[in-house]
Amino acid sequence: MNTEEVAKKVVELVRKQAWYEALELYDDNVVSVEAYSAGGGSPETRGKEGVRGKIDWWVNAMEIHSFDAGDPFVGNDRFVVQYDADVTDKNSKQRRKLSEVGVYTVKDGKIVREEFLPRVD
Amino acid sequence: MNTEEVAKKVVELVRKQAWYEALELYDDNVVSVEAYSAGGGSPETRGKEGVRGKIDWWVNAMEIHSFDAGDPFVGNDRFVVQYDADVTDKNSKQRRKLSEVGVYTVKDGKIVREEFLPRVD
Repeated sequence: MNTEEVAKKVVELVRKQAWYEALELYDDNVVSVEAYSAGGGSPETRGKEGVRGKIDWWVNAMEIHSFDAGDPFVGNDRFVVQYDADVTDKNSKQRRKLSEVGVYTVKDGKIVREEFLPRVD
Repeated sequence: MNTEEVAKKVVELVRKQAWYEALELYDDNVVSVEAYSAGGGSPETRGKEGVRGKIDWWVNAMEIHSFDAGDPFVGNDRFVVQYDADVTDKNSKQRRKLSEVGVYTVKDGKIVREEFLPRVD
């Protein structure tokens, strides 16, 4: 798949909240970067199994009221998708709106890097 | 300036269409990347003076009816801004809407890389 095809597939799967299916688009050595680390750890997660762990955390921790993905913005080996979500942290019961973009890098048809950047007002 | 401050300044200046003033935020050795090259040349422009040349081209070639910048999405050394513009190419008289994101990388308070990615429906 080329970058645009990967981008459209990510958007299609995220809109269905098919998180584990989307994992098939990732390179085994993907690097996944959050803007901030939880609990003072590294904001970087390495490897497809690390990303699977993030998905496990996400589906266990969050009640998802809505999760929207915008149309992708696509370049040669990079694409950007905006996500807007409404979630409740199951543990704290705190409900909040999330707005962020994912910046993805594609190589040989697989996602080799993703970075998530939260919206700043 | 940190990444968030640079991001907010870019948004502020672009909303004023203060293109040349924004140039002060760029590193001398910035790399500026378009998704597609005009006329088969390289999509990469190197150096602050190269970016100045792109601005010269832009202000000479386009009649700008509107140019909106969204709130920035900010990470550690990276930020993303969505632009939506309504322009007429002065030469062809063709009016069109542009929607793209800029993905910026910041180092030592200066923009060292920018990439523009058009929206794909």
